[in-house]
Amino acid sequence: MSIRENFENNLEEVNRKITEMGEQTIVALERAFKALKTQDVEIALKVIEGDTAIDNLEKDINEFAIWLVAKEAPISRDLREIISVLKISTEIERVADFAVNIAKATIKIGNTKSLLEITHLEKMKELSIEMLRKALQSFLDENILLAIEVGDLEDEVDEYSSETYKKLTTYLSDHPEETNQLVQLLFVNRFLERTADHITNIAESTAYLIKGQIYDFNS
Amino acid sequence: MSIRENFENNLEEVNRKITEMGEQTIVALERAFKALKTQDVEIALKVIEGDTAIDNLEKDINEFAIWLVAKEAPISRDLREIISVLKISTEIERVADFAVNIAKATIKIGNTKSLLEITHLEKMKELSIEMLRKALQSFLDENILLAIEVGDLEDEVDEYSSETYKKLTTYLSDHPEETNQLVQLLFVNRFLERTADHITNIAESTAYLIKGQIYDFNS
Repeated sequence: MSIRENFENNLEEVNRKITEMGEQTIVALERAFKALKTQDVEIALKVIEGDTAIDNLEKDINEFAIWLVAKEAPISRDLREIISVLKISTEIERVADFAVNIAKATIKIGNTKSLLEITHLEKMKELSIEMLRKALQSFLDENILLAIEVGDLEDEVDEYSSETYKKLTTYLSDHPEETNQLVQLLFVNRFLERTADHITNIAESTAYLIKGQIYDFNS
Repeated sequence: MSIRENFENNLEEVNRKITEMGEQTIVALERAFKALKTQDVEIALKVIEGDTAIDNLEKDINEFAIWLVAKEAPISRDLREIISVLKISTEIERVADFAVNIAKATIKIGNTKSLLEITHLEKMKELSIEMLRKALQSFLDENILLAIEVGDLEDEVDEYSSETYKKLTTYLSDHPEETNQLVQLLFVNRFLERTADHITNIAESTAYLIKGQIYDFNS
Protein backbone atom coordinates (compact mmCIF):
# COMPACT_ATOMS: atom_id res chain seq x y z
CA MET A 1 0.00 0.00 0.00
CA SER A 2 1.39 3.44 -0.88
CA ILE A 3 1.89 6.09 1.81
CA ARG A 4 -0.92 8.07 0.19
CA GLU A 5 -3.35 5.14 0.23
CA ASN A 6 -2.43 4.45 3.81
CA PHE A 7 -3.11 8.07 4.81
CA GLU A 8 -6.47 8.03 3.06
CA ASN A 9 -7.42 4.75 4.74
CA ASN A 10 -6.60 6.36 8.07
CA LEU A 11 -8.80 9.34 7.23
CA GLU A 12 -11.66 7.01 6.24
CA GLU A 13 -11.28 5.23 9.56
CA VAL A 14 -11.54 8.50 11.47
CA ASN A 15 -14.54 9.59 9.36
CA ARG A 16 -16.31 6.34 10.26
CA LYS A 17 -15.77 7.19 13.91
CA ILE A 18 -17.17 10.70 13.36
CA THR A 19 -20.27 9.16 11.73
CA GLU A 20 -20.67 6.73 14.60
CA MET A 21 -20.36 9.58 17.11
CA GLY A 22 -22.98 11.59 15.21
CA GLU A 23 -25.41 8.67 15.12
CA GLN A 24 -25.07 7.99 18.84
CA THR A 25 -25.64 11.69 19.52
CA ILE A 26 -28.84 11.72 17.44
CA VAL A 27 -30.08 8.71 19.44
CA ALA A 28 -29.22 10.59 22.67
CA LEU A 29 -31.18 13.67 21.58
CA GLU A 30 -34.21 11.60 20.53
CA ARG A 31 -34.16 9.64 23.78
CA ALA A 32 -33.66 12.73 25.94
CA PHE A 33 -36.64 14.35 24.31
CA LYS A 34 -38.77 11.24 24.62
CA ALA A 35 -37.88 11.16 28.32
CA LEU A 36 -38.89 14.81 28.69
CA LYS A 37 -42.16 14.39 26.81
CA THR A 38 -43.26 11.25 28.63
CA GLN A 39 -41.67 12.31 31.95
CA ASP A 40 -39.78 9.03 32.00
CA VAL A 41 -36.87 9.19 34.43
CA GLU A 42 -35.61 5.71 33.42
CA ILE A 43 -35.01 6.80 29.83
CA ALA A 44 -33.39 10.01 31.08
CA LEU A 45 -30.92 7.98 33.14
CA LYS A 46 -30.08 5.87 30.06
CA VAL A 47 -29.13 9.05 28.17
CA ILE A 48 -26.79 10.07 30.99
CA GLU A 49 -25.18 6.61 31.12
CA GLY A 50 -24.83 6.45 27.32
CA ASP A 51 -22.79 9.66 27.25
CA THR A 52 -19.61 7.87 28.35
CA ALA A 53 -19.54 5.95 25.06
CA ILE A 54 -19.77 9.23 23.11
CA ASP A 55 -17.03 10.82 25.25
CA ASN A 56 -14.82 7.80 24.61
CA LEU A 57 -15.39 8.06 20.85
CA GLU A 58 -14.26 11.69 21.04
CA LYS A 59 -11.11 10.70 22.91
CA ASP A 60 -10.38 7.96 20.33
CA ILE A 61 -10.83 10.42 17.49
CA ASN A 62 -8.61 13.05 19.11
CA GLU A 63 -5.82 10.60 19.87
CA PHE A 64 -6.05 9.09 16.40
CA ALA A 65 -5.94 12.52 14.76
CA ILE A 66 -2.94 13.70 16.80
CA TRP A 67 -1.17 10.40 16.13
CA LEU A 68 -1.82 10.85 12.41
CA VAL A 69 -0.35 14.38 12.48
CA ALA A 70 2.72 13.21 14.41
CA LYS A 71 3.20 10.22 12.06
CA GLU A 72 2.52 11.78 8.67
CA ALA A 73 3.42 15.46 9.24
CA PRO A 74 0.67 16.40 6.76
CA ILE A 75 0.55 19.84 5.16
CA SER A 76 -2.07 22.16 3.62
CA ARG A 77 -5.33 20.36 2.80
CA ASP A 78 -4.50 17.12 4.65
CA LEU A 79 -3.62 19.09 7.77
CA ARG A 80 -6.83 21.13 7.40
CA GLU A 81 -8.82 17.90 7.21
CA ILE A 82 -7.35 16.61 10.46
CA ILE A 83 -7.92 19.95 12.21
CA SER A 84 -11.55 19.78 11.01
CA VAL A 85 -11.90 16.30 12.47
CA LEU A 86 -10.63 17.56 15.84
CA LYS A 87 -13.01 20.49 15.82
CA ILE A 88 -16.03 18.51 14.63
CA SER A 89 -15.61 15.76 17.23
CA THR A 90 -15.45 18.45 19.95
CA GLU A 91 -18.68 20.01 18.70
CA ILE A 92 -20.53 16.67 18.50
CA GLU A 93 -19.44 15.94 22.06
CA ARG A 94 -20.93 19.26 23.16
CA VAL A 95 -24.21 18.47 21.39
CA ALA A 96 -24.30 15.13 23.23
CA ASP A 97 -23.74 17.03 26.49
CA PHE A 98 -26.89 19.03 25.78
CA ALA A 99 -28.83 15.76 25.40
CA VAL A 100 -27.51 14.88 28.87
CA ASN A 101 -28.56 18.31 30.15
CA ILE A 102 -32.09 17.77 28.80
CA ALA A 103 -32.15 14.38 30.52
CA LYS A 104 -31.07 16.01 33.80
CA ALA A 105 -33.78 18.67 33.44
CA THR A 106 -36.30 15.83 32.91
CA ILE A 107 -35.20 14.27 36.18
CA LYS A 108 -35.55 17.62 37.96
CA ILE A 109 -39.05 18.10 36.56
CA GLY A 110 -39.94 14.63 37.86
CA ASN A 111 -43.63 13.77 38.08
CA THR A 112 -45.18 17.23 37.79
CA LYS A 113 -48.79 16.53 36.94
CA SER A 114 -49.49 18.89 34.08
CA LEU A 115 -46.50 19.11 31.79
CA LEU A 116 -46.74 22.23 29.67
CA GLU A 117 -47.29 21.66 25.98
CA ILE A 118 -43.82 21.56 24.46
CA THR A 119 -44.57 21.70 20.73
CA HIS A 120 -42.00 24.41 20.03
CA LEU A 121 -39.25 22.60 21.91
CA GLU A 122 -40.03 19.43 19.99
CA LYS A 123 -39.83 21.31 16.70
CA MET A 124 -36.42 22.71 17.75
CA LYS A 125 -35.22 19.21 18.59
CA GLU A 126 -36.34 17.97 15.15
CA LEU A 127 -34.64 20.88 13.39
CA SER A 128 -31.44 20.25 15.37
CA ILE A 129 -31.35 16.61 14.33
CA GLU A 130 -31.96 17.59 10.70
CA MET A 131 -29.11 20.12 11.03
CA LEU A 132 -26.76 17.54 12.51
CA ARG A 133 -27.48 15.03 9.73
CA LYS A 134 -26.89 17.70 7.08
CA ALA A 135 -23.72 19.00 8.76
CA LEU A 136 -22.20 15.52 8.93
CA GLN A 137 -23.25 14.69 5.35
CA SER A 138 -21.78 18.01 4.26
CA PHE A 139 -18.46 17.07 5.90
CA LEU A 140 -18.35 13.53 4.49
CA ASP A 141 -19.35 14.57 0.95
CA GLU A 142 -17.54 17.93 1.10
CA ASN A 143 -20.80 19.52 0.01
CA ILE A 144 -20.81 23.27 0.69
CA LEU A 145 -24.51 23.67 -0.17
CA LEU A 146 -25.53 21.38 2.68
CA ALA A 147 -23.31 23.41 5.03
CA ILE A 148 -25.10 26.60 4.01
CA GLU A 149 -28.51 24.94 4.59
CA VAL A 150 -27.42 24.21 8.15
CA GLY A 151 -26.89 27.93 8.74
CA ASP A 152 -30.39 28.68 7.41
CA LEU A 153 -31.99 26.09 9.69
CA GLU A 154 -30.21 27.64 12.67
CA ASP A 155 -32.11 30.89 12.06
CA GLU A 156 -35.37 28.93 12.37
CA VAL A 157 -34.25 27.40 15.67
CA ASP A 158 -33.34 30.88 16.96
CA GLU A 159 -36.81 32.18 16.12
CA TYR A 160 -38.50 29.26 17.88
CA SER A 161 -36.22 29.82 20.84
CA SER A 162 -37.13 33.51 21.21
CA GLU A 163 -40.84 32.70 20.95
CA THR A 164 -40.53 29.90 23.48
CA TYR A 165 -38.64 32.14 25.91
CA LYS A 166 -41.44 34.74 25.76
CA LYS A 167 -44.15 32.11 26.03
CA LEU A 168 -42.57 30.36 29.01
CA THR A 169 -41.72 33.53 30.96
CA THR A 170 -45.21 34.96 30.38
CA TYR A 171 -46.76 31.71 31.56
CA LEU A 172 -44.39 31.71 34.53
CA SER A 173 -45.55 35.18 35.63
CA ASP A 174 -49.13 33.85 35.68
CA HIS A 175 -48.38 30.46 37.21
CA PRO A 176 -45.71 30.89 39.90
CA GLU A 177 -46.82 27.56 41.42
CA GLU A 178 -45.23 25.81 38.40
CA THR A 179 -41.87 27.57 38.75
CA ASN A 180 -39.79 24.40 38.95
CA GLN A 181 -41.10 22.87 35.74
CA LEU A 182 -41.05 26.16 33.84
CA VAL A 183 -37.49 27.07 34.85
CA GLN A 184 -36.34 23.64 33.67
CA LEU A 185 -38.19 24.09 30.36
CA LEU A 186 -36.48 27.48 30.00
CA PHE A 187 -33.16 25.68 30.43
CA VAL A 188 -34.17 23.06 27.86
CA ASN A 189 -35.06 25.87 25.46
CA ARG A 190 -31.58 27.28 25.94
CA PHE A 191 -29.91 23.87 25.55
CA LEU A 192 -31.65 23.38 22.19
CA GLU A 193 -30.66 26.85 20.99
CA ARG A 194 -27.04 26.10 21.97
CA THR A 195 -27.26 22.68 20.30
CA ALA A 196 -28.12 24.41 17.04
CA ASP A 197 -25.18 26.83 17.53
CA HIS A 198 -22.71 23.99 17.92
CA ILE A 199 -24.07 22.12 14.91
CA THR A 200 -23.63 25.33 12.93
CA ASN A 201 -19.98 25.32 14.07
CA ILE A 202 -19.66 21.87 12.45
CA ALA A 203 -20.96 23.31 9.20
CA GLU A 204 -18.49 26.18 9.49
CA SER A 205 -15.58 23.79 10.03
CA THR A 206 -16.74 21.88 6.96
CA ALA A 207 -16.91 25.07 4.92
CA TYR A 208 -13.38 25.92 6.10
CA LEU A 209 -12.21 22.49 4.99
CA ILE A 210 -13.81 22.77 1.56
CA LYS A 211 -13.01 26.40 0.80
CA GLY A 212 -9.96 27.03 3.00
CA GLN A 213 -11.48 30.14 4.51
CA ILE A 214 -13.32 30.89 7.73
CA TYR A 215 -17.10 31.24 7.66
CA ASP A 216 -19.52 32.59 10.24
CA PHE A 217 -23.01 31.20 9.67
CA ASN A 218 -24.17 32.44 13.07
CA SER A 219 -24.40 36.09 12.15
CA MET B 1 20.32 26.14 18.99
CA SER B 2 19.72 22.40 19.43
CA ILE B 3 16.47 20.80 18.25
CA ARG B 4 15.61 20.21 21.90
CA GLU B 5 16.17 23.84 22.90
CA ASN B 6 14.15 24.96 19.91
CA PHE B 7 11.26 22.70 20.87
CA GLU B 8 11.32 23.98 24.45
CA ASN B 9 11.36 27.58 23.26
CA ASN B 10 8.30 26.82 21.17
CA LEU B 11 6.55 25.33 24.19
CA GLU B 12 7.41 28.40 26.26
CA GLU B 13 5.95 30.60 23.54
CA VAL B 14 2.69 28.63 23.57
CA ASN B 15 2.58 28.71 27.40
CA ARG B 16 2.90 32.52 27.29
CA LYS B 17 -0.14 32.59 25.00
CA ILE B 18 -2.08 30.34 27.39
CA THR B 19 -1.22 32.72 30.26
CA GLU B 20 -2.32 35.71 28.19
CA MET B 21 -5.60 33.97 27.31
CA GLY B 22 -6.19 33.18 30.98
CA GLU B 23 -5.55 36.76 32.06
CA GLN B 24 -7.89 38.19 29.44
CA THR B 25 -10.55 35.70 30.54
CA ILE B 26 -10.22 36.75 34.19
CA VAL B 27 -10.66 40.39 33.10
CA ALA B 28 -13.76 39.34 31.11
CA LEU B 29 -15.29 37.57 34.12
CA GLU B 30 -14.57 40.52 36.44
CA ARG B 31 -16.03 42.99 33.95
CA ALA B 32 -19.09 40.86 33.19
CA PHE B 33 -19.84 40.64 36.87
CA LYS B 34 -19.28 44.33 37.44
CA ALA B 35 -21.71 45.00 34.58
CA LEU B 36 -24.29 42.69 36.18
CA LYS B 37 -23.89 44.19 39.64
CA THR B 38 -24.06 47.81 38.52
CA GLN B 39 -26.55 47.08 35.68
CA ASP B 40 -24.13 48.76 33.28
CA VAL B 41 -24.95 47.82 29.69
CA GLU B 42 -21.89 49.67 28.32
CA ILE B 43 -19.47 47.46 30.26
CA ALA B 44 -21.49 44.39 29.23
CA LEU B 45 -21.04 45.34 25.57
CA LYS B 46 -17.28 45.70 26.10
CA VAL B 47 -17.12 42.12 27.40
CA ILE B 48 -18.90 40.89 24.28
CA GLU B 49 -16.58 42.86 21.98
CA GLY B 50 -13.48 41.73 23.86
CA ASP B 51 -14.30 38.07 23.28
CA THR B 52 -12.98 38.17 19.71
CA ALA B 53 -9.43 38.73 21.02
CA ILE B 54 -9.74 35.66 23.26
CA ASP B 55 -11.16 33.57 20.40
CA ASN B 56 -8.23 34.67 18.23
CA LEU B 57 -5.74 33.67 20.91
CA GLU B 58 -7.33 30.22 20.99
CA LYS B 59 -7.02 29.92 17.20
CA ASP B 60 -3.35 31.01 17.37
CA ILE B 61 -2.63 28.46 20.07
CA ASN B 62 -4.38 25.65 18.19
CA GLU B 63 -2.60 26.40 14.93
CA PHE B 64 0.74 26.72 16.68
CA ALA B 65 0.24 23.44 18.54
CA ILE B 66 -0.77 21.52 15.40
CA TRP B 67 2.14 23.08 13.50
CA LEU B 68 4.49 21.97 16.27
CA VAL B 69 3.17 18.40 16.13
CA ALA B 70 3.49 18.30 12.34
CA LYS B 71 7.02 19.77 12.48
CA GLU B 72 8.52 17.89 15.42
CA ALA B 73 6.54 14.63 15.46
CA PRO B 74 6.87 14.59 19.26
CA ILE B 75 6.26 11.43 21.29
CA SER B 76 5.22 10.48 24.83
CA ARG B 77 5.54 13.39 27.28
CA ASP B 78 6.12 16.10 24.64
CA LEU B 79 3.05 14.94 22.73
CA ARG B 80 1.05 14.86 25.97
CA GLU B 81 2.11 18.43 26.66
CA ILE B 82 0.85 19.64 23.29
CA ILE B 83 -2.44 17.75 23.65
CA SER B 84 -2.82 19.44 27.08
CA VAL B 85 -2.27 22.84 25.48
CA LEU B 86 -5.01 22.12 22.91
CA LYS B 87 -7.44 20.99 25.59
CA ILE B 88 -6.67 23.82 28.02
CA SER B 89 -7.07 26.55 25.40
CA THR B 90 -10.47 25.08 24.45
CA GLU B 91 -11.57 25.14 28.09
CA ILE B 92 -10.39 28.74 28.66
CA GLU B 93 -12.31 29.78 25.55
CA ARG B 94 -15.45 28.19 27.00
CA VAL B 95 -14.96 30.03 30.29
CA ALA B 96 -14.66 33.29 28.34
CA ASP B 97 -17.92 32.40 26.57
CA PHE B 98 -19.63 32.22 29.94
CA ALA B 99 -18.39 35.75 30.70
CA VAL B 100 -20.08 36.77 27.44
CA ASN B 101 -23.23 34.93 28.47
CA ILE B 102 -23.28 36.82 31.79
CA ALA B 103 -22.85 40.07 29.86
CA LYS B 104 -25.80 39.13 27.60
CA ALA B 105 -27.94 38.29 30.63
CA THR B 106 -27.04 41.73 32.04
CA ILE B 107 -28.30 43.36 28.85
CA LYS B 108 -31.53 41.34 29.04
CA ILE B 109 -32.06 42.38 32.66
CA GLY B 110 -31.58 46.02 31.61
CA ASN B 111 -32.71 48.67 34.06
CA THR B 112 -34.89 46.62 36.39
CA LYS B 113 -35.25 48.83 39.44
CA SER B 114 -34.61 46.47 42.31
CA LEU B 115 -31.84 44.09 41.42
CA LEU B 116 -31.94 41.10 43.73
CA GLU B 117 -29.04 40.78 46.13
CA ILE B 118 -26.50 38.62 44.35
CA THR B 119 -24.00 37.84 47.12
CA HIS B 120 -23.87 34.12 46.34
CA LEU B 121 -23.31 34.68 42.64
CA GLU B 122 -20.48 37.08 43.43
CA LYS B 123 -18.88 34.52 45.72
CA MET B 124 -19.11 31.93 42.91
CA LYS B 125 -17.44 34.37 40.53
CA GLU B 126 -14.62 34.96 43.00
CA LEU B 127 -14.13 31.25 43.58
CA SER B 128 -14.08 30.65 39.81
CA ILE B 129 -11.36 33.23 39.31
CA GLU B 130 -9.34 31.73 42.15
CA MET B 131 -9.80 28.31 40.52
CA LEU B 132 -8.69 29.59 37.12
CA ARG B 133 -5.53 31.18 38.59
CA LYS B 134 -4.69 27.98 40.44
CA ALA B 135 -5.42 25.77 37.43
CA LEU B 136 -3.13 27.82 35.16
CA GLN B 137 -0.38 28.00 37.80
CA SER B 138 -0.72 24.26 38.27
CA PHE B 139 -0.21 23.77 34.52
CA LEU B 140 2.75 26.15 34.24
CA ASP B 141 4.54 24.83 37.35
CA GLU B 142 3.37 21.23 36.86
CA ASN B 143 2.11 21.33 40.42
CA ILE B 144 -0.35 18.50 41.11
CA LEU B 145 -1.33 19.85 44.56
CA LEU B 146 -2.72 23.04 43.02
CA ALA B 147 -4.70 20.93 40.54
CA ILE B 148 -6.28 19.00 43.41
CA GLU B 149 -7.17 22.26 45.19
CA VAL B 150 -9.09 23.31 42.09
CA GLY B 151 -11.27 20.21 42.40
CA ASP B 152 -12.00 21.05 46.05
CA LEU B 153 -13.01 24.61 45.22
CA GLU B 154 -15.40 23.30 42.57
CA ASP B 155 -17.35 21.49 45.28
CA GLU B 156 -17.83 24.84 47.03
CA VAL B 157 -19.11 26.43 43.83
CA ASP B 158 -21.55 23.54 43.37
CA GLU B 159 -22.93 24.06 46.88
CA TYR B 160 -23.42 27.78 46.30
CA SER B 161 -25.09 26.98 43.00
CA SER B 162 -27.64 24.59 44.55
CA GLU B 163 -28.45 27.10 47.29
CA THR B 164 -28.80 29.93 44.77
CA TYR B 165 -31.10 27.84 42.58
CA LYS B 166 -33.40 27.15 45.53
CA LYS B 167 -33.31 30.75 46.68
CA LEU B 168 -34.05 32.20 43.25
CA THR B 169 -36.86 29.77 42.38
CA THR B 170 -38.50 30.26 45.79
CA TYR B 171 -38.30 34.03 45.35
CA LEU B 172 -39.66 33.63 41.82
CA SER B 173 -42.74 31.78 43.07
CA ASP B 174 -43.47 34.72 45.37
CA HIS B 175 -42.57 37.52 42.94
CA PRO B 176 -43.83 36.56 39.48
CA GLU B 177 -43.66 40.23 38.48
CA GLU B 178 -39.84 39.94 38.49
CA THR B 179 -39.75 36.87 36.25
CA ASN B 180 -37.44 38.40 33.64
CA GLN B 181 -34.70 39.38 36.06
CA LEU B 182 -34.96 36.17 38.07
CA VAL B 183 -34.82 33.89 35.05
CA GLN B 184 -31.69 35.70 33.87
CA LEU B 185 -30.11 35.35 37.33
CA LEU B 186 -30.95 31.63 37.21
CA PHE B 187 -29.07 31.47 33.92
CA VAL B 188 -26.11 33.38 35.44
CA ASN B 189 -26.10 30.89 38.31
CA ARG B 190 -25.87 28.07 35.78
CA PHE B 191 -23.14 29.85 33.78
CA LEU B 192 -21.00 30.18 36.90
CA GLU B 193 -21.51 26.54 37.82
CA ARG B 194 -20.45 25.54 34.30
CA THR B 195 -17.49 27.93 34.46
CA ALA B 196 -16.23 26.05 37.49
CA ASP B 197 -16.73 22.72 35.66
CA HIS B 198 -14.61 23.83 32.75
CA ILE B 199 -11.86 25.18 34.99
CA THR B 200 -11.84 21.81 36.73
CA ASN B 201 -11.29 20.23 33.30
CA ILE B 202 -8.15 22.39 33.00
CA ALA B 203 -6.91 20.98 36.31
CA GLU B 204 -7.68 17.46 35.05
CA SER B 205 -5.72 18.04 31.85
CA THR B 206 -2.84 19.30 33.96
CA ALA B 207 -3.00 16.23 36.20
CA TYR B 208 -2.99 14.06 33.06
CA LEU B 209 0.10 15.91 31.83
CA ILE B 210 1.95 15.53 35.14
CA LYS B 211 0.95 11.98 36.01
CA GLY B 212 0.13 10.50 32.59
CA GLN B 213 -3.22 9.20 33.75
CA ILE B 214 -6.77 10.48 33.49
CA TYR B 215 -8.38 12.13 36.53
CA ASP B 216 -11.98 13.04 37.25
CA PHE B 217 -12.16 15.80 39.86
CA ASN B 218 -15.85 16.36 39.12
CA SER B 219 -17.12 13.28 40.86
